[in-house]
Amino acid sequence: MNFASDNAAPAADAVLDAIREANRGHVLGYGNDAFTARAKQRLADVFERDCAIFLVSTGTAANALALAAMTPPWGAVIAHEEAHIATDECGAPEFFTNGGKLVTVPSDDAKLTPEAAGAVLDEFGWGGAHHVEANALSIAQASEAGTTYSVAEVEALARLAHDRGLGLHMDGARFANALVYTGATPAEMSWKAGVDVLSLGFTKGGAMAAEAILVFDERYAAHLEQRRKRAGHLFSKHRYLAAQILAMLDDGLWLHLAAIANTAAARLAAGLAAAGHAPVYAAETNVLFAALPKSVDLALRQAGAQYYARRPRFIPKARVGADRISVRLVTSHATTEAEIEQFLGFVKRAA
Amino acid sequence: MNFASDNAAPAADAVLDAIREANRGHVLGYGNDAFTARAKQRLADVFERDCAIFLVSTGTAANALALAAMTPPWGAVIAHEEAHIATDECGAPEFFTNGGKLVTVPSDDAKLTPEAAGAVLDEFGWGGAHHVEANALSIAQASEAGTTYSVAEVEALARLAHDRGLGLHMDGARFANALVYTGATPAEMSWKAGVDVLSLGFTKGGAMAAEAILVFDERYAAHLEQRRKRAGHLFSKHRYLAAQILAMLDDGLWLHLAAIANTAAARLAAGLAAAGHAPVYAAETNVLFAALPKSVDLALRQAGAQYYARRPRFIPKARVGADRISVRLVTSHATTEAEIEQFLGFVKRAA
Amino acid sequence: MNFASDNAAPAADAVLDAIREANRGHVLGYGNDAFTARAKQRLADVFERDCAIFLVSTGTAANALALAAMTPPWGAVIAHEEAHIATDECGAPEFFTNGGKLVTVPSDDAKLTPEAAGAVLDEFGWGGAHHVEANALSIAQASEAGTTYSVAEVEALARLAHDRGLGLHMDGARFANALVYTGATPAEMSWKAGVDVLSLGFTKGGAMAAEAILVFDERYAAHLEQRRKRAGHLFSKHRYLAAQILAMLDDGLWLHLAAIANTAAARLAAGLAAAGHAPVYAAETNVLFAALPKSVDLALRQAGAQYYARRPRFIPKARVGADRISVRLVTSHATTEAEIEQFLGFVKRAA
Amino acid sequence: MNFASDNAAPAADAVLDAIREANRGHVLGYGNDAFTARAKQRLADVFERDCAIFLVSTGTAANALALAAMTPPWGAVIAHEEAHIATDECGAPEFFTNGGKLVTVPSDDAKLTPEAAGAVLDEFGWGGAHHVEANALSIAQASEAGTTYSVAEVEALARLAHDRGLGLHMDGARFANALVYTGATPAEMSWKAGVDVLSLGFTKGGAMAAEAILVFDERYAAHLEQRRKRAGHLFSKHRYLAAQILAMLDDGLWLHLAAIANTAAARLAAGLAAAGHAPVYAAETNVLFAALPKSVDLALRQAGAQYYARRPRFIPKARVGADRISVRLVTSHATTEAEIEQFLGFVKRAA
Repeated sequence: MNFASDNAAPAADAVLDAIREANRGHVLGYGNDAFTARAKQRLADVFERDCAIFLVSTGTAANALALAAMTPPWGAVIAHEEAHIATDECGAPEFFTNGGKLVTVPSDDAKLTPEAAGAVLDEFGWGGAHHVEANALSIAQASEAGTTYSVAEVEALARLAHDRGLGLHMDGARFANALVYTGATPAEMSWKAGVDVLSLGFTKGGAMAAEAILVFDERYAAHLEQRRKRAGHLFSKHRYLAAQILAMLDDGLWLHLAAIANTAAARLAAGLAAAGHAPVYAAETNVLFAALPKSVDLALRQAGAQYYARRPRFIPKARVGADRISVRLVTSHATTEAEIEQFLGFVKRAA
Repeated sequence: MNFASDNAAPAADAVLDAIREANRGHVLGYGNDAFTARAKQRLADVFERDCAIFLVSTGTAANALALAAMTPPWGAVIAHEEAHIATDECGAPEFFTNGGKLVTVPSDDAKLTPEAAGAVLDEFGWGGAHHVEANALSIAQASEAGTTYSVAEVEALARLAHDRGLGLHMDGARFANALVYTGATPAEMSWKAGVDVLSLGFTKGGAMAAEAILVFDERYAAHLEQRRKRAGHLFSKHRYLAAQILAMLDDGLWLHLAAIANTAAARLAAGLAAAGHAPVYAAETNVLFAALPKSVDLALRQAGAQYYARRPRFIPKARVGADRISVRLVTSHATTEAEIEQFLGFVKRAA
Repeated sequence: MNFASDNAAPAADAVLDAIREANRGHVLGYGNDAFTARAKQRLADVFERDCAIFLVSTGTAANALALAAMTPPWGAVIAHEEAHIATDECGAPEFFTNGGKLVTVPSDDAKLTPEAAGAVLDEFGWGGAHHVEANALSIAQASEAGTTYSVAEVEALARLAHDRGLGLHMDGARFANALVYTGATPAEMSWKAGVDVLSLGFTKGGAMAAEAILVFDERYAAHLEQRRKRAGHLFSKHRYLAAQILAMLDDGLWLHLAAIANTAAARLAAGLAAAGHAPVYAAETNVLFAALPKSVDLALRQAGAQYYARRPRFIPKARVGADRISVRLVTSHATTEAEIEQFLGFVKRAA
Repeated sequence: MNFASDNAAPAADAVLDAIREANRGHVLGYGNDAFTARAKQRLADVFERDCAIFLVSTGTAANALALAAMTPPWGAVIAHEEAHIATDECGAPEFFTNGGKLVTVPSDDAKLTPEAAGAVLDEFGWGGAHHVEANALSIAQASEAGTTYSVAEVEALARLAHDRGLGLHMDGARFANALVYTGATPAEMSWKAGVDVLSLGFTKGGAMAAEAILVFDERYAAHLEQRRKRAGHLFSKHRYLAAQILAMLDDGLWLHLAAIANTAAARLAAGLAAAGHAPVYAAETNVLFAALPKSVDLALRQAGAQYYARRPRFIPKARVGADRISVRLVTSHATTEAEIEQFLGFVKRAA
C-alpha cells in the first residue's frame, strides 16, 4: 500500500528491456547516436511536428532548463504559488535563469487562471530599467492537485501569454495522465493549444530517469545545448535516455501506464467517497488529496500504508476540517487492485 | 511643485561643502582613508555601538548586498509584495544572492506583519533538499506607503525572524523620516529592536549618492567586502562617500532635513484632507498617496505640478473610487512652503 | 575499431543486471532507499572510511558540484589549462560556483605540478577586497593525457594546497584506471594522500550513468544536498544510480573492467611503437595520444576506425611533427583483442 | 610624494564646481534629466558619432557591465593575464556575465597581441555543446604597464576579433592618458579602430566617481539598461554623474589633466634613468614600473614617499635583478613638479 509518490514505483519492464537492447556495441556519445535520433523522431511523430528536443534525466532539469531558455536574468515567470517549480526544486529555476524571478499567484485548486495571471500582469510594473520583464507563464499539466487543464483552458492562457509577449511553459511531469483524462492528443494539449515549451516527463510514468524538453517555439532553443551541458545534464552515454523514451512511446505504453495509474486513483477516490471521505478535488489523474479523520489516518499508518500528510495552501482550510488530516495519495502504473482494496478495507474498518 | 520623488531634489549644500572640504591632497583609495574612518566612527556613535559598516552609492546596492550577505542562493527573503526590493530593483536581490528567492506577501498598507510572515513560514515547506531555506525578513522603514513601523512592531518581526532562525533586514532608504515620525533613536529603531542588517539611506534625504550598510550581526559581514568589490561598488575615491555621510550626520542634519520633508508632507496631507481628498494613509513621513478626482489631477498637471499616477496593489481599490486617480506625492528637504501652498491652491480651485 | 571515447562503449552486463534486480516494488525516492544506503556503505568500505557521499549521473555534475562546494563565487580553482573542467564542460564550474574562476597553468603532460601551482599562488595577488581567493587545486586522475599521478605526487600537491589554505579536488572520471596502473588502493590515492573531495566516475568505466562525489573534508559537504537538487541532479528514482555503483564495486568489477581497458591501451601502444609510432606519453591508462603519419591516419579512417584527431596544447608541437596528425585513442572495458589486432594490422599495412 | 595611485589624488576643482552648478532645483532622477542628455551629447560630439551611452560610478562597473553585454554565461573573454579585469576586480566580470570565463594569456609588457590571442583561438576548442564560445577580446588602453596600443595595434586586434566573430572591448580607465601619448583622437582610438565597447574612465583622471560605457556596436546595448539597474549602478540623482563628465570634457579638461600626469611621469622616468634606474617600460602615460635598489627604496620610504612594491608577472624577472625591488609609480593630475624633484632628490642622495 504505497501511495507516497509515483517516483517510489519501479520502472516498467519494457523500459529495462529497451535499455538492455540498446546496450550493444559502440555508439557515439552525447546524443550523436541512432537511438537518440530515433527517440527524437518518435517524439516528433507523436506530437505531429518537428521541434527542437533535448533529453535529460530529471524533471527539475527539464523545467529549469526550459524556463532558463524563456527567461533572462532580469525576467520573470508567473506560476501558481505551489507549483513544483516554485516550491519543490530548491530554487532550480532561479539558478538556471541566473537570478530570474518567479512571481506566484494563489488559487484554490493549484491551477493558474487567465484572470489571476492577467491581474499580476496588469497591476505590477513590468519592464523598463526598474522592473523585471514578464517572460513566461508556467503551468503544470496535470496540476499539483491532480487536476487537469482542458485544451480550452490552455488555449486561454496561451492567448493571454502571447498577447502580452510572454511564452507558455508546461510542466508535463504527469502529461500522460492529463492526456488520458482529457482525451486530448499530445499535439492538441501542447503546441496546438499554444504551449511554447513542454517539459515532458517519463520518469514518474514508468521510466527510470528520462525526460524530454520539446521546444515548439524555436527561438527558445537557441542556447539550450550549451545550457544543458553547462548544467551537467548532457549525458555521455546518451542512448540510455533515448531507449527509455522509445520504450515508453512504443505502442503507446506511456498512455497505457498512465491509464493504469489514473484508474487506480479513480477507484481509490470512489472508495473514499463511499466511506464518507470524498477527495478534495475530482480524481482526474493519479494524485488525490483527502481529508481523513485522525483515527482513520492512524489505522492506515498502523496497517503499513505509506503516504504523506500534506496540506498545500491551495486546499482551503474549510475543506479539511478541524479533526481531520489532509493527506496526499499518489497512484502509479505499479499500483495494484489488491493494494487499493486493502487500503479501502482499512478505511472502512477504521470508520 | 515637484512631488515626483525625493531623488528629484538637489543635495543639501552642506553635503557639497563637505565634499569640497575633503578634496585636498592625496589620501589612500578604497576606504583606507581618514574620512572613511571618521564616517564609520560617526555612524557607530550615532547608532551607539560598533558594527561592520560598508559605504556604497545607491540604495539598490545597499539592499542587494545586505540581502546577499543574509541569504544563500538556495535561500529566501520574505517581504511585502510591493517592497522596493521586490518590484523596483530589476531583480537586484536575485542577482546579488546568485539566484535566491523573494517570497512576497500582500497587505493593505505596504507593511509586513508577523501574522502574514508567520503564515508563509508555517504553510510552505522550507529547507531540506527540496525547498529553499527561509533566511531573512525584509521590511522598509518607512514603508512604500510612507507609513512607519513602531519600535514594538519591529521587535515583533525580529522576534518572529529570530525564533525561526531568520535574520531581519531593514531597507532604510527613508530611515531618517521614520525616526523623525516615531521619535525613536537610531539604535532603538535598529539593532535594539532586533534589526540585523540596516541599509541606511542618505541619498533621498539630502546626499548626492551615499548609503551605508550597517551589519549588526557580524556573521553577515564575513564576505561583504568581496561582494561589494565584485559588484563594482567599492569606490576608489572613497573619501567622497564618507564626506557626504559626515555632512549628513553633523549636528543631526539628516534628521533636520527629514523633518522638513515630513512637515511638508503633513501640510500637504492636511490641505488635501481639507479639500476633501484625505490621503489614503496617515501622513507619517514624506510619501503620500491620494485619490484625486480626475478634474483635480488634470488641473494640477496643467499647472505644472509633477508627480506620478500610481496605484500599488497595497491600496485597496475601494479606497480610490471609480472616477479618481491614485497619485503618489513625495516631499523632500527641498520642498518649500510656497510649493505646498501653490499646489493646494490649485487643488481648491479645481474643486 | 572504436577508439573515439570510453563513453562510446556499452555498459557492463552486470550493471544492467543490478538495475533489473533493483527494479522490484516500491522504495522511497530521492535517495531514501536501501539501495542508496548500501551503495554509500560499500563506497565507505572500499575507501576505508566514512564520508559524505552524493550520487549523480554525469561527470560534469560531479566535478562542478564538488568545485562549487569548495569555492565561493569570489574564489578560484587552479587547474591545468586543458583540464576537462576548464575546457570541456562548457563553463559548468563557473555556473555551479556562481561565477568562480578557473586559473589555469600549462604543462607538457597535462599534469599539474606543485611548482606551477605554487608559482601561480606566489606571483598573483590573492584575497582581500580586490582579488579572488585561491580555494582549490583540481587535478584529473588519470590526466587528460592518460598519465597518472603517483601517490607521492598527489601528496605533494595536497601539501601545497593545505599549506596555503586550499583544498584538493580530484576529477576521478578514470580513477579506476589510475588505481590499476599505480597499484594504489582507493584510500591511498584519495584521502590518505590528501584529497579533500573526489569526483568518482563509474560511467566511463562501465556504468550507464553513475558517479559519486566523496567528500572527505566534511566542511565541504554542508550545502551539497541543496546544490545538487537545485541543479536538477537529485534523482527521484535514486535506486538506479545506487544499483549501478553497487554492481561496479561488487567483486571489484570496476577495477577488473579498468584493467581490461588499460591492457588494451598498452597493447595498442606497444603495437604502435613497434610500427614506429610510439605514443606521445607512456601508456599508463586507457587514453593514448599518437602522432600518426597522414597516410596511416587515412588508411585507418578508410578501414572504418573511429577516433578523434586532437592536438591539445599539452602536446608540444615538436612531438607531433609536420606531416603527422595527432590523434587520441581511447580504449574501454569493451575493447576486444580483435579490434586491437585489426587496428594494428591496418597501421602496419599503411606503413 | 604620493605615487601610490591616481585614485589617491583629489578631484579637479572644475569637477566640484560643475556639481555645485548642477545642484539647483528639481530634476527627474535615473538619467531622465537635461544634464545627462547634455553629457551624452557631449560624449557623442567628442567621439564624433552617436552611440548608446551608460554612465556609472566605478571602473569595475564599467568594465563588468561592458563585458556582460558582450559575453553570455557560456562565453569567454580573452585578455592579458594581468589585466585589471582578470586580477583586480574580485571576479566582477564573472559575476556580471553570470559565470562567463576569462581566458588569459601572458606577455612581457601587459599588452595583448594578435598572435597570442590568435593562438588561444586556434589551439583551444570553442563552441558547440562542450566548449564555451569566445566572445570578446579585452584590452586596456593604457595597459597595466603604462604602455599604449597604437591605433594600428588596436586595428589589428579588432580585425582578429571581428574575423573570428568576437567583439573588441577596451578598458579605458586611462584612455585620456593614451590619447595624449599617441596623439590619436577619441574616435580614431576607439570605434574607428574597431573598438565595439569602450569603458571610458574619468575617475582616475580627475573626476570624483564617473565613468561612461560607450557602446559602438548597438547589438551590445540591448539589455545594458537592465543590467545596470540590476547591479545597483543606476544612480537616482543621476545629474551628478553627468556634471562630472561635462566638466571633464569642457575645453578638453580631461586631456589637459592627462597631459599633466603624463608629463610628470616622463620627468620621473627621465630622472630615474639619469640616476641609473631607467623604468622597465618606456614612460608613455602615467604609470611606471622601476627596479630600485633596496637602499634607494628604503631611503624613499623613510622620506615619506608613498608607492607600492609590485612585480606583476608581465615584468620578466631578469629586468628586476636580485637585489632590486620592483615598484609601481603612478602620477596624476595633482602631481606637482616639486614632488617629482623631491622624489628624484632622494633617489640621487640614496645612490
